Amino acid sequence: LNKLKKDNTGYDLKNLFIGAEGTLGVITAATLRLIPRPRSVETAFVGVASPAAALELLGIANEKSGGNITSFELMVRLGIDAVLKYDAGSRDPLNEAHPWYLLIELSAQARTGLRDTMEEILAAGVERGLVADAAISSSLEQTKAFWRIREMFGEVQRQVGGSIKHDISVPVANVPAFIAEANDAVIKLIPGARPLPFGHLGDGNIHYNVAQPVDADKEKFLARWHDVNTVVFDVVLKYGGSISAEHGIGIMKRDLLPTIKDPVAMELMRALKRTLDPNGILNPGKVL
Amino acid sequence: LNKLKKDNTGYDLKNLFIGAEGTLGVITAATLRLIPRPRSVETAFVGVASPAAALELLGIANEKSGGNITSFELMVRLGIDAVLKYDAGSRDPLNEAHPWYLLIELSAQARTGLRDTMEEILAAGVERGLVADAAISSSLEQTKAFWRIREMFGEVQRQVGGSIKHDISVPVANVPAFIAEANDAVIKLIPGARPLPFGHLGDGNIHYNVAQPVDADKEKFLARWHDVNTVVFDVVLKYGGSISAEHGIGIMKRDLLPTIKDPVAMELMRALKRTLDPNGILNPGKVL
Repeated sequence: LNKLKKDNTGYDLKNLFIGAEGTLGVITAATLRLIPRPRSVETAFVGVASPAAALELLGIANEKSGGNITSFELMVRLGIDAVLKYDAGSRDPLNEAHPWYLLIELSAQARTGLRDTMEEILAAGVERGLVADAAISSSLEQTKAFWRIREMFGEVQRQVGGSIKHDISVPVANVPAFIAEANDAVIKLIPGARPLPFGHLGDGNIHYNVAQPVDADKEKFLARWHDVNTVVFDVVLKYGGSISAEHGIGIMKRDLLPTIKDPVAMELMRALKRTLDPNGILNPGKVL
Repeated sequence: LNKLKKDNTGYDLKNLFIGAEGTLGVITAATLRLIPRPRSVETAFVGVASPAAALELLGIANEKSGGNITSFELMVRLGIDAVLKYDAGSRDPLNEAHPWYLLIELSAQARTGLRDTMEEILAAGVERGLVADAAISSSLEQTKAFWRIREMFGEVQRQVGGSIKHDISVPVANVPAFIAEANDAVIKLIPGARPLPFGHLGDGNIHYNVAQPVDADKEKFLARWHDVNTVVFDVVLKYGGSISAEHGIGIMKRDLLPTIKDPVAMELMRALKRTLDPNGILNPGKVL
C-alpha cells in the first residue's frame, strides 16, 4: 500500500506478486495511481500492404510522437472480412480492401497539436509507400466504430469455425518474420488452415489465432491444438519470444512452461514458490 | 536478456535483482531498450513563494502536459545563494530573489507545440498567483546555465559547512508538509541549523540536507548525524515515506532498515536472501 513513486529500501516485493497468478500470496488491497484523462485523442484506421509496412510505420510514429502512441493494433484482412460479414453494426471505414490494417491511437494531455502529429505520421507513411489508405476519425462516434471492428475481431472468430489460439510476443522488429514463418508452418501442417493474426504490434504481442480450413470438421481440427501449438511455439522461440505475452500460464500452459523456460529460471521459480508457500496451499497446481 | 515488451511466463525474476544491490546475484549482462532522443525540449527557471505553490504548479503542468514532464526540480533559496556565491560560472536567471525555485523541463518527440505548453503552464501559474517570476530558456547555452545551477546545488554545500544528508521520498502531495515539519524538528533539535531541501518534486523525492549553523563547529555538528536522521525519519514515516528514495541501503542504512520496514516485509526479504544465497557469499553485510 506504498504510495511512493520512488522507494529503494530493499527488495522489490511488489513485482514478485504481480503476475504470480496467486501462487505466492493473496492480494487483499492495492494502492492505485490515477492520471488525468487525456484531453486529446486521435484515432486512425489504416490500410497497409504487409506487417513489414506496418512495422516501418510504427517506427515513423515512434519518431514523431514517442510517448503519445496508446494503441498500434495490427489486423489481417481475413478477420476484417469476418467482422464485416458477421457483425451487423460494423462497416468498412475504407473504400477498398487491403491485406492488413492498423488501428492507431494517439493520446495527449495537450489540447492541440495531436491531429497534426497523426497527419504527419500518415503523410510520411503515404510518401514512403507504406500507407495505402487511411481514415482519421472526426467524431467520437467514428472513433467508436473503428474500435468496434478491433473489439469484434475475437468475437466473430467463432463464426469462422474452430480456432486454435496463441497469445505470443516476439521482439517488435521480428513480428513480420514471425507471422510469415508461423503462417508457413501452420499451413504446411494443416493445408487450408487460415491464420488470423491480430493484436498489439506496438508491444510485439500478437494473438496468433488459426481458423479451421473452410468446410473442415471443427472437432477434428481442434484435436490438432497441441500440434499447432508446437509448430507456432517453435517459431516464437526462434525469435526469442514468449508463449504467453499477457494471458499467463494457469493450468493450460503449466506443463508447457518447463519445456520453453530456461532451466535456471524454472528452478529459481520453484525455489521462490517453496520459500513463500512451503505447504503448497496458494492456488495449488497453477503455473508450476 | 529478454527483449520482449510483454512476457507473462512465470514470476518476475528481473525485478527481484534490480535494486537488490548485488545481494541476490551478479548481473553480468543486460538488454537495454533505446528510445529516440526528444526532438523538442523546453526548460524554465521559476521563482515561487513556497513548496505548496510549487506543488500546485506541478498539478497544472500534469494537467497540461502529462507525459512530457521530464524534470520538476525544487530548490530552496539558501542553496541558490550558495551556488551564486561559490560557483563562479553561475548567475541568477531571475532579477529578484525568491524563497523557492523550480527547474522545469518538458520533452517531446513532436517538433512543435512544446513552447506553447510551457507558456500555458507558466501563464496559468502567474494567473493563480503561484509563479512570481520565470525565465524560459531561449538557447542551448541558457538551458545549460539553468541546469548548472541545479547540478552545482550538491557540490557547493561543502562550502556552506558540514551537511547532514537524507535521500527521502513521501507521496508527492505531502512534500510541502514534510519540508515544513522536518524544518521545525531539525531547528528545534539544533537551533541555527539550516535545512537545504532540493530535488525531484515530481517524484516526491527530496534530498533533505541540513547545513550546520553559521560559525558552528563542523565536527560537533556532524556528530549529531544520527540524532538529525531520527527526527527527519520520524516525519518521513508519519507521511508514509521512504528513508531511501534512490540511493539504496548499503551498509550505511542497513541497521536502520529493520527499524522502519514492515516486519513481514523484512522477514520475506531475509527468506529470499536465504533461498538465493544460502551461503551468504553475495555482497555480504549489505542491505540485510
